[in-house]
Amino acid sequence: MSILIKNVLLEGKERNINIEGNLIEAISEDKSNKEAEFVIDGKDKAAIPGLFNAHTHAAMTLLRGYADDMPLQEWLETKIWPVEAKMKEDDVYWGTKLACLEMIKSGTIFFNDMYWHWRGSARAVAECGIRAALSAVFIDSFDEGLAKEQIRRNEALYEESKKISERIIFVLGPHAIYTVSKESLCWVRDFAEKHDLLVHIHLSETEEEVEDCIKRYGMRPVEFLDSIGFLSTRTIASHCVHLSRKEMKLLKKSDVKIVHNPTSNMKLAAGKMPYEELKRAGLYSNIALGTDGCASNNNLDMFEEMKIASLFHKAFSGDPTSMPAKEAFELATLNAAKMFRLNSGVIEEGELADVVLLDLKYAELTPNHNLTSNIVYSANGSCVDTVICDGRILMEGRKVEGEEEIKDKAKEVAYELVKHG
Amino acid sequence: MSILIKNVLLEGKERNINIEGNLIEAISEDKSNKEAEFVIDGKDKAAIPGLFNAHTHAAMTLLRGYADDMPLQEWLETKIWPVEAKMKEDDVYWGTKLACLEMIKSGTIFFNDMYWHWRGSARAVAECGIRAALSAVFIDSFDEGLAKEQIRRNEALYEESKKISERIIFVLGPHAIYTVSKESLCWVRDFAEKHDLLVHIHLSETEEEVEDCIKRYGMRPVEFLDSIGFLSTRTIASHCVHLSRKEMKLLKKSDVKIVHNPTSNMKLAAGKMPYEELKRAGLYSNIALGTDGCASNNNLDMFEEMKIASLFHKAFSGDPTSMPAKEAFELATLNAAKMFRLNSGVIEEGELADVVLLDLKYAELTPNHNLTSNIVYSANGSCVDTVICDGRILMEGRKVEGEEEIKDKAKEVAYELVKHG
Repeated sequence: MSILIKNVLLEGKERNINIEGNLIEAISEDKSNKEAEFVIDGKDKAAIPGLFNAHTHAAMTLLRGYADDMPLQEWLETKIWPVEAKMKEDDVYWGTKLACLEMIKSGTIFFNDMYWHWRGSARAVAECGIRAALSAVFIDSFDEGLAKEQIRRNEALYEESKKISERIIFVLGPHAIYTVSKESLCWVRDFAEKHDLLVHIHLSETEEEVEDCIKRYGMRPVEFLDSIGFLSTRTIASHCVHLSRKEMKLLKKSDVKIVHNPTSNMKLAAGKMPYEELKRAGLYSNIALGTDGCASNNNLDMFEEMKIASLFHKAFSGDPTSMPAKEAFELATLNAAKMFRLNSGVIEEGELADVVLLDLKYAELTPNHNLTSNIVYSANGSCVDTVICDGRILMEGRKVEGEEEIKDKAKEVAYELVKHG
Repeated sequence: MSILIKNVLLEGKERNINIEGNLIEAISEDKSNKEAEFVIDGKDKAAIPGLFNAHTHAAMTLLRGYADDMPLQEWLETKIWPVEAKMKEDDVYWGTKLACLEMIKSGTIFFNDMYWHWRGSARAVAECGIRAALSAVFIDSFDEGLAKEQIRRNEALYEESKKISERIIFVLGPHAIYTVSKESLCWVRDFAEKHDLLVHIHLSETEEEVEDCIKRYGMRPVEFLDSIGFLSTRTIASHCVHLSRKEMKLLKKSDVKIVHNPTSNMKLAAGKMPYEELKRAGLYSNIALGTDGCASNNNLDMFEEMKIASLFHKAFSGDPTSMPAKEAFELATLNAAKMFRLNSGVIEEGELADVVLLDLKYAELTPNHNLTSNIVYSANGSCVDTVICDGRILMEGRKVEGEEEIKDKAKEVAYELVKHG
């Protein structure tokens, strides 16, 4: 399909954007528009790259608001895990569909996921039209039998993943160092290297994790992973809240990617991710933003996440110039696109056609002294009018196909899951 | 006018709400609906009390995104104050209209304002149909002549205010202890007592303010205000970030009201307002939430403010149970209504008809395990479908009368103001 977006605000000027297939073919300022099968009027709209949610557990939309304001361990043990244990592939499918819908409606065109029932998530993503890096939760609880099972499952899913959709990136998902044995982590390391796969892991989210690691392995989490050669440019480490200076250097040495989840860290009181220190360690362009799952956020709105990220670091550092709007925006676009090896995250000729149009008539975008400031500090996801991903229009005028059915079915499975909880 | 809201979700059950004039006349569960001139179908909607924004500078919508990511003093001196100096009554009128529009669209039915050109704000509020407590910025810069001028102006505005609208509460607005002389503060104290007026003041927002006060008066800000008998049950102190234990006791002793502005405090890195400590000092029901002005937020969305408030205190206290959803919601409704002496902030028979209907089909409100959690942690202002204030429908199906003109005119005056900035 070819699409022409006419007279849309792009980097301060009205321009035309031509999309051909799944690529941005041309960007021009003149009025001589190339013909296209589909024309979108860009009047009173601004074009920005689609947003990236670099760490989430999409199907947890089903648990939105189910358990809040609780201490972390009690929350997991009495609320989240018991319900997750009951989830079936179809539940995950509907939960992920709801997540995709919410993301499309708030301008997100990619998410990096780790969850149960991989096939359910993959099916949802394939249908919804957005991009995703999907990993199956790999937990062996230090049990050899379980480890073998997980390895077989991942090998099979990797093969299977090749046939599903080009928008889906298969990723390995060792949950964390406190739930996965050293032997399995080494298997992940080798399998990832062999097939050039990204590896998605929770790392140094809580103080407790660090203490446990020191007890178990005699060193801190990043030191441990470095000692077994686990860290590489393909490693995507989520959270990275508790890091020593030495650990930051190790992350830099191996060019490890880092996902910051400010809302989740604040809500669960996990601690303060050392953003300024990581920047000083030369890791700025390795950092992206994620919402985490809806049980600890409780939405998937990357506009909100950018704002909260910036506020968090201004407040904690005592420096109102920390994480300016431009940086927060890059964390949610360009940096993340590079992390997932996608030619996206900017609107330029030859890049993937992942384009979001904002409604400049939205009150929170009025007046428009500085669009990036408005996006980061004032907007929310509902200012998104149109979403194009991989050259396909997924939303126009805030309408998404099949929206009602997705919400109805997701509600149904969600209520059924918590019924006896 | 009489309004019937049929079959709306209210506190977990479908109910009918009858509004007669500006009051909630009846709430019933049965299907025998009283007749009404206007009927609203409450299917897939939830009724909540309209939200209160307890501290803002409404017309600063005009400066949204104009200057961000700057140190406080530089920001004020080089950006905000020069533009404010150019503002005329008509600018404030259009800026406040835009603010009212944004508030209505995000479910806020009341704001407490302090700004220049009081008449411009008053005119906007009278027209827009929401409630406001309006104070004129009182700054004398320790100059006797200016003080006299300000006093005369406030006396005149007080008289004038009686004739404008019952939805407008005239409030005295001494800006802060570092901009208003002791003599003027004493005048404010006496005039407020004589006419039973609320007094809106910025208090202990920054460390610098505390240090300056100690230099000038030999005591901390709250101690100083207490020493001149300024503090009373009518005092509304915004920010209250830097408080000693003794100062908290003084606030409690005089039953002072406190407005917390978490986003602004974070964005300007003002410090952490001691919410838990104030609660322990018995001041919980004296606290409300505000967005502050759009130059330091940058929106007026109280849904976002509730979430950020809760996240802020969880993160800073290290306790994920701090400020649970129910509290954040009360800070934005019930507590604020009491602060401004309005029978609002709850939906009950006999209360003012300030009712907001949420669209339960909004993705971020799906599923609905716990509406209060969804409101505080997941929703944003765009989940509001209908707003009724003082018995009048100000928005239905997200449509507000005159919306386009307000945005166009506000943009026009905003761009003109910053033209040579």
